[in-house]
Amino acid sequence: MRTFRLVIGYDGTSFHGWQAQPGQRTVQGVLVETLRMLLAGEAIDVHGAGRTDAGVHARGQVASFQSATRLPPRAIEAGLARRLPPDVRVRSIGEADAGFHARHSACGRRYAYRLLRADDPLFSRFAWHPRHAPDPDALERATRALEGEHDFSAFQAAGSTRVPPECRVARARWGRWEGGVRLDIVADRFLYHMVRNVVGTALSAAASPDPAEAMRKVLAGRDRRCAGVTAPAHGLCFEEVFYREAGA
Amino acid sequence: MRTFRLVIGYDGTSFHGWQAQPGQRTVQGVLVETLRMLLAGEAIDVHGAGRTDAGVHARGQVASFQSATRLPPRAIEAGLARRLPPDVRVRSIGEADAGFHARHSACGRRYAYRLLRADDPLFSRFAWHPRHAPDPDALERATRALEGEHDFSAFQAAGSTRVPPECRVARARWGRWEGGVRLDIVADRFLYHMVRNVVGTALSAAASPDPAEAMRKVLAGRDRRCAGVTAPAHGLCFEEVFYREAGA
Repeated sequence: MRTFRLVIGYDGTSFHGWQAQPGQRTVQGVLVETLRMLLAGEAIDVHGAGRTDAGVHARGQVASFQSATRLPPRAIEAGLARRLPPDVRVRSIGEADAGFHARHSACGRRYAYRLLRADDPLFSRFAWHPRHAPDPDALERATRALEGEHDFSAFQAAGSTRVPPECRVARARWGRWEGGVRLDIVADRFLYHMVRNVVGTALSAAASPDPAEAMRKVLAGRDRRCAGVTAPAHGLCFEEVFYREAGA
Repeated sequence: MRTFRLVIGYDGTSFHGWQAQPGQRTVQGVLVETLRMLLAGEAIDVHGAGRTDAGVHARGQVASFQSATRLPPRAIEAGLARRLPPDVRVRSIGEADAGFHARHSACGRRYAYRLLRADDPLFSRFAWHPRHAPDPDALERATRALEGEHDFSAFQAAGSTRVPPECRVARARWGRWEGGVRLDIVADRFLYHMVRNVVGTALSAAASPDPAEAMRKVLAGRDRRCAGVTAPAHGLCFEEVFYREAGA
């Protein structure tokens, strides 16, 4: 068996998220189905580095799979380019070490959340226009308070408590993009809805006199009910995955 | 009669361009229809600063119209926000001087053309992924050769020769955006297909030993057949219009 590593991008608008589910159009489902056609009916398990939700986009999702195929990676890439629908595209494909697993081997992930400063139809598929224009400096003070290793229970979707709540956030900074401002957040792992809850809470915190203190208070409370609203899925994009070794 | 000035954005994907045409969905057509409903059946003429082609987007198109309405601009803005389809949005509206005309009063326009460095489904509605990755420095040398006042016949769509071919290009520079590189071009006026022909020609010129010289040669030849291909419509976006006075 050979191990392959794909970097893929998708417009999440018309997907019910990453994870295969019966009767739903999902990115994993489309990939599995397309690989099976391409690889002469071989049943393929595809693992993604992150299980993005319905409506969430990706520019740098990483996926791995094993196959007995003798096709070179370039031929698989060309076959996928021909057969995949336009809203999911393979950016690169390579052979990886036998032990490589897109999720288990990952040591870090980067997500971006884009906010619009005005109602802008060109960018509204992947950026959220909040009701009140946010102050970028206040947002920056709010999210920087999250950097470091913490219990992020307060930012976890209510009811999803099966995984350890500790995450190491290496970076949570705001920068400008063409349509407004964008949160770039890097962590070893993310809890369910964590980035969207961080954005919703940062918007509330940014409106308070001390955004950093407001954010630290929510974090220390470890109570989802103290955090802000969950920002909409369509503003979120899975940008990049980090591995200790190249893996491909 | 009062004169109004709108700044609008649209995703051009599902429009047959700006200009109203019988039986086609156009931005001007949708605006005229929506204003008529909003303004109690009054027939409204809407003038746009630029007549964008089918598939071309806008983030800063300016439109003007006259009306006998007594509604304040804020009420018209709210009414349009409710009634316009999601792919066309009003960014601002104000009352303008009686003589204001979105097209005739404009003294400059800015367009952006976005290129993708990789196949990126999230951005592929408004950016073109050319077959060969362009060298940004070579592109910059090519388009800077166009700055100044010139006869742009070489970059005019074949067959469209009814207007004077002289344009004053104030700026034609490339910069980075999230998905790749972007041409920002500012001129007092543009000929039909001019920006798309400039991009197609710049891509060819960038592959030659002296991109600036290659571009100057095409320009001096004043012959459309010597220029490059017309870059696709969907990479083009009408970003901004300039007026001598505020106009609103």
